[in-house]
Amino acid sequence: MTDTQADVAIIMGSQSDWATMRHAAETLAALGVSYKSLIISAHRTPQRLYDFATGAKAAGYKIVVAGAGGAAHLPGMAASMTPLPVFGVPVESKALSGQDSLLSIVQMPAGVPVGTMAIGKAGAVNAALLAAAVLALDDAELAGRLDAWRAQQTQNVALEPKDDA
Amino acid sequence: MTDTQADVAIIMGSQSDWATMRHAAETLAALGVSYKSLIISAHRTPQRLYDFATGAKAAGYKIVVAGAGGAAHLPGMAASMTPLPVFGVPVESKALSGQDSLLSIVQMPAGVPVGTMAIGKAGAVNAALLAAAVLALDDAELAGRLDAWRAQQTQNVALEPKDDA
Amino acid sequence: MTDTQADVAIIMGSQSDWATMRHAAETLAALGVSYKSLIISAHRTPQRLYDFATGAKAAGYKIVVAGAGGAAHLPGMAASMTPLPVFGVPVESKALSGQDSLLSIVQMPAGVPVGTMAIGKAGAVNAALLAAAVLALDDAELAGRLDAWRAQQTQNVALEPKDDA
Amino acid sequence: MTDTQADVAIIMGSQSDWATMRHAAETLAALGVSYKSLIISAHRTPQRLYDFATGAKAAGYKIVVAGAGGAAHLPGMAASMTPLPVFGVPVESKALSGQDSLLSIVQMPAGVPVGTMAIGKAGAVNAALLAAAVLALDDAELAGRLDAWRAQQTQNVALEPKDDA
Amino acid sequence: MTDTQADVAIIMGSQSDWATMRHAAETLAALGVSYKSLIISAHRTPQRLYDFATGAKAAGYKIVVAGAGGAAHLPGMAASMTPLPVFGVPVESKALSGQDSLLSIVQMPAGVPVGTMAIGKAGAVNAALLAAAVLALDDAELAGRLDAWRAQQTQNVALEPKDDA
Amino acid sequence: MTDTQADVAIIMGSQSDWATMRHAAETLAALGVSYKSLIISAHRTPQRLYDFATGAKAAGYKIVVAGAGGAAHLPGMAASMTPLPVFGVPVESKALSGQDSLLSIVQMPAGVPVGTMAIGKAGAVNAALLAAAVLALDDAELAGRLDAWRAQQTQNVALEPKDDA
Amino acid sequence: MTDTQADVAIIMGSQSDWATMRHAAETLAALGVSYKSLIISAHRTPQRLYDFATGAKAAGYKIVVAGAGGAAHLPGMAASMTPLPVFGVPVESKALSGQDSLLSIVQMPAGVPVGTMAIGKAGAVNAALLAAAVLALDDAELAGRLDAWRAQQTQNVALEPKDDA
Amino acid sequence: MTDTQADVAIIMGSQSDWATMRHAAETLAALGVSYKSLIISAHRTPQRLYDFATGAKAAGYKIVVAGAGGAAHLPGMAASMTPLPVFGVPVESKALSGQDSLLSIVQMPAGVPVGTMAIGKAGAVNAALLAAAVLALDDAELAGRLDAWRAQQTQNVALEPKDDA
Repeated sequence: MTDTQADVAIIMGSQSDWATMRHAAETLAALGVSYKSLIISAHRTPQRLYDFATGAKAAGYKIVVAGAGGAAHLPGMAASMTPLPVFGVPVESKALSGQDSLLSIVQMPAGVPVGTMAIGKAGAVNAALLAAAVLALDDAELAGRLDAWRAQQTQNVALEPKDDA
Repeated sequence: MTDTQADVAIIMGSQSDWATMRHAAETLAALGVSYKSLIISAHRTPQRLYDFATGAKAAGYKIVVAGAGGAAHLPGMAASMTPLPVFGVPVESKALSGQDSLLSIVQMPAGVPVGTMAIGKAGAVNAALLAAAVLALDDAELAGRLDAWRAQQTQNVALEPKDDA
Repeated sequence: MTDTQADVAIIMGSQSDWATMRHAAETLAALGVSYKSLIISAHRTPQRLYDFATGAKAAGYKIVVAGAGGAAHLPGMAASMTPLPVFGVPVESKALSGQDSLLSIVQMPAGVPVGTMAIGKAGAVNAALLAAAVLALDDAELAGRLDAWRAQQTQNVALEPKDDA
Repeated sequence: MTDTQADVAIIMGSQSDWATMRHAAETLAALGVSYKSLIISAHRTPQRLYDFATGAKAAGYKIVVAGAGGAAHLPGMAASMTPLPVFGVPVESKALSGQDSLLSIVQMPAGVPVGTMAIGKAGAVNAALLAAAVLALDDAELAGRLDAWRAQQTQNVALEPKDDA
Repeated sequence: MTDTQADVAIIMGSQSDWATMRHAAETLAALGVSYKSLIISAHRTPQRLYDFATGAKAAGYKIVVAGAGGAAHLPGMAASMTPLPVFGVPVESKALSGQDSLLSIVQMPAGVPVGTMAIGKAGAVNAALLAAAVLALDDAELAGRLDAWRAQQTQNVALEPKDDA
Repeated sequence: MTDTQADVAIIMGSQSDWATMRHAAETLAALGVSYKSLIISAHRTPQRLYDFATGAKAAGYKIVVAGAGGAAHLPGMAASMTPLPVFGVPVESKALSGQDSLLSIVQMPAGVPVGTMAIGKAGAVNAALLAAAVLALDDAELAGRLDAWRAQQTQNVALEPKDDA
Repeated sequence: MTDTQADVAIIMGSQSDWATMRHAAETLAALGVSYKSLIISAHRTPQRLYDFATGAKAAGYKIVVAGAGGAAHLPGMAASMTPLPVFGVPVESKALSGQDSLLSIVQMPAGVPVGTMAIGKAGAVNAALLAAAVLALDDAELAGRLDAWRAQQTQNVALEPKDDA
Repeated sequence: MTDTQADVAIIMGSQSDWATMRHAAETLAALGVSYKSLIISAHRTPQRLYDFATGAKAAGYKIVVAGAGGAAHLPGMAASMTPLPVFGVPVESKALSGQDSLLSIVQMPAGVPVGTMAIGKAGAVNAALLAAAVLALDDAELAGRLDAWRAQQTQNVALEPKDDA
């Protein structure tokens, strides 16, 4: 997991999280931000998590976007082992609709932050947008693309609701 | 953290958890079960967690009792790195009264179990009792002490409530 | 309910819980752990519960796995009448998605522990794994099978998410 | 626990529940309804629960009022072993403020009813009032006293709020 | 709404509640208890509620079973205007799955009790069973039928789960 | 309760609600809006509620502000019997912190609206402000006073936080 | 957004909210109240929100009905910039069923009120009814139509439930 | 609010939020990150919010840390009007302990991200740490200070709990 050129690592706890996290990937792609998507299970592949997180900065990543559901330990544990900013995405869980995911990610103790997004797809899109906003602080071209993306988003909001939409 | 003679490792995320987890220690002591108490923060000392959990069995521990609050990742992460049984104690958190701790510990994905106890002191006592029950499967003397403890508990329940109790 | 050779009793409150609890049975079978599955309703068959729980140890069981939903009293009541370790599985309920089941099982008072698992199928699988971990403390062969199961689980986690998975 | 002359059995899981349940006792006393208060822990004294519940009708009780907190199994288990009406009072628990008590009592499966009251003191008062209302169906004098109690309650409501109340 | 021969009034807030409350009716019918089913909306027909509740005892009813959903005011308002025992059934609501219904019914202030049942169908069945248990206090034949119903229920619980059930 | 000159009726379920509802009274007074404060318990004084609500419009009231806690039926029942706008204030309850009050007030079925405010003091203040905003639609002087109140509120917000505030 | 003849502005955060908010529009239409429906996203079109809210009164609107879901900021932000009464409708959200929408709308701080309705369609209908009740304070003809609407609603409630409804 | 040299703007909804947000300020100060603290109420000073947010980037800020409680609209509304990264801190509210604050901040729709932290003081500290981590991406000296801060934090965790701590 070394020698990457990608700015953002999108990590997730299982293949099933990809249905949510792919929206992060697609948003980064639309903004021209490089990323790499990896499955890293905090519980089933703890060594992989350890190796990834302790090496993420050296590997060239600048931001980690981490999605997980249920007792969602991946974002917080990644944050405990890397100085990079970590943004967490609570994946919607079956029984509790992501309430467990949300609390497991957001309620980090003082000292190890995870910037937490909304439950589900919206959170995945927004983690990508927030990563882009961070990278844009030092990348004027990306800032321009992000501004354009936001302007387009504003323009896309029709003034009147449509019955057949 | 090697070469212990203790059967039970009581680990907790911070010094402040000791007010809860000492009840596990006291219960084990009352039952004559050996234990060792350690502060291991999943987030602030991830290397210590890694070292402890991957080496817990070799160090001679048979059971891990883990208490943590908020985004409580300690029990689940310990369980991901040891084949020993792990019992989790949700420590009562300030804002959410331990509801975050409970969900972060109990909602583990299939594959990595944590036997979760009640929030707070009752959970700490019960983690010790459950550990003793497990050890008693192969220790008739401990089984006898545990039976006596339970019988005494039953006897201690008065039949009529007292106004000045 | 006497004279069993099974190490684990899987009990559940109703036939409808079997859809969840069969995952405990299948996991135990995969690990080569003997078990017996029984329907014992705390509310509709209290005598059966009393007979089972007070006789479970004498019948040769070592561990009780108990699944129930709603006002789920089965795990806790079994734990009140047997010295054996009891692991509880909150079955997902219709209206409250298992939040009632979870709280009814996990919030046991000090003195009578139930090691509680996640809501639903994951909890059933994990109750079996935790039972196996307990039995493996005194069974090196089972410990080896459990290690292999966990290693396989780790290997099964692909590094990259797949779009068509 | 046999040969009582009391119409209502007030049972509770522990001495600490008396602070709540005494309000049931005081309300019954005010209405001239006979009662007996007993501590019966579903978890710590399961045999006492079994004996009480299976014998409650024969002992002459007509109604059971049961209070408990946390994983509150007492009302439901009593209801499973007696044909008498059971009214449950969720005692306020420390961490979860009685939400666990409430769900553990009210979410009974079809077949075994518990008429559940509000959390805490209000619930204890109301369990007594409901018991009285039931007994009053066949006791015109009690019905009269209950009507008077309710009329007095109505009269006690001042029309205008007072600043120094 | 006068001159009824029915012992139990089953009232509900709307036609849509009948899908739930019919289970109360069917259970009463199975037990040979007379009942009458009425739609009384606390909010849309407050006069009908007033007339029913203030006249329920004189009309010959002995017990009121009231089901409602959302801001479920019917059971509590009926209880405020009749001395008869009132049992409430929280109907499952769309957005909040009956959590609003449950709290609106069960959290009555001291002075006006509603014996509250589980959310949904189970609660409707149990309200009928509890009404029958109350009526059976003074009706030995009904007590016998109720005992038989419960015994049959116990017998219906198979000992082993079936895969194809 | 007839022949009032007050524009706003502030009703509440009990004397204890006055600690919250007085903030509505004080806010109306500050804005020069006439009001009358009354204790009307939906459960303990249903006849008073019936009389008040059916006569509120004829009595000259224009708006009803209703505060209640727990199973808070007062706002909704008032709304069912008056065509006047009703604004509800969920009073903070002991065990559930007003979550029961909020849901009991806000989750009204289609057909009978209650404009619900925040739990507690903020809600009481805001019910008064909303009542004033409604009355100001047809009262330019009041509109001016309300504008001034809001402008003052804006001015009162200091730009920088103070350590010793 | 100026020079309207409509009394009520129905604003919503996105096209997808229209499925809910159209019920407000239809109810206003049925009552003969003029309205205009607009999509105004607090987050995606903040300038549109600013322009609308600061100009709503000058544009001739008398009441604002605002629907939004999730972190629903539209009603409260509109209320912060207009002296007009604002009624909020929590739109049902995907993961949390509108619990987030409800709390985001109703828990406004003292000083800026939003009269909040039930989650979803019922809330949209009721926001319209409440708006009509406000307008009817100064419009006797509308008051008459509203009275008729309510009387019809009462008449529509059948007395007995139908099996095939 | 222009011509600042500060990298981080700490904004909060009221003076009362400063008790929480000062921990963000103190953490930034400890790390040598420049910041400015401002009270900006989304509801009481919407114009100030508009001016701040639309001008924050031009004023030289790089990151916005926003804390608010209850219906906490400040972080999300700031995010809607600035391209800068916004990190939100849910301030603990009185009745709902910050659950309303958390949901109002974190459940943002796709398109406008807010990186949300834990409720209360821990969240304030972590918002500062996350801001520092972002700034450290382009500031090696700050990165060094942050690494040292984290290393010190790790060293501060004693291995064994102390009874008199």
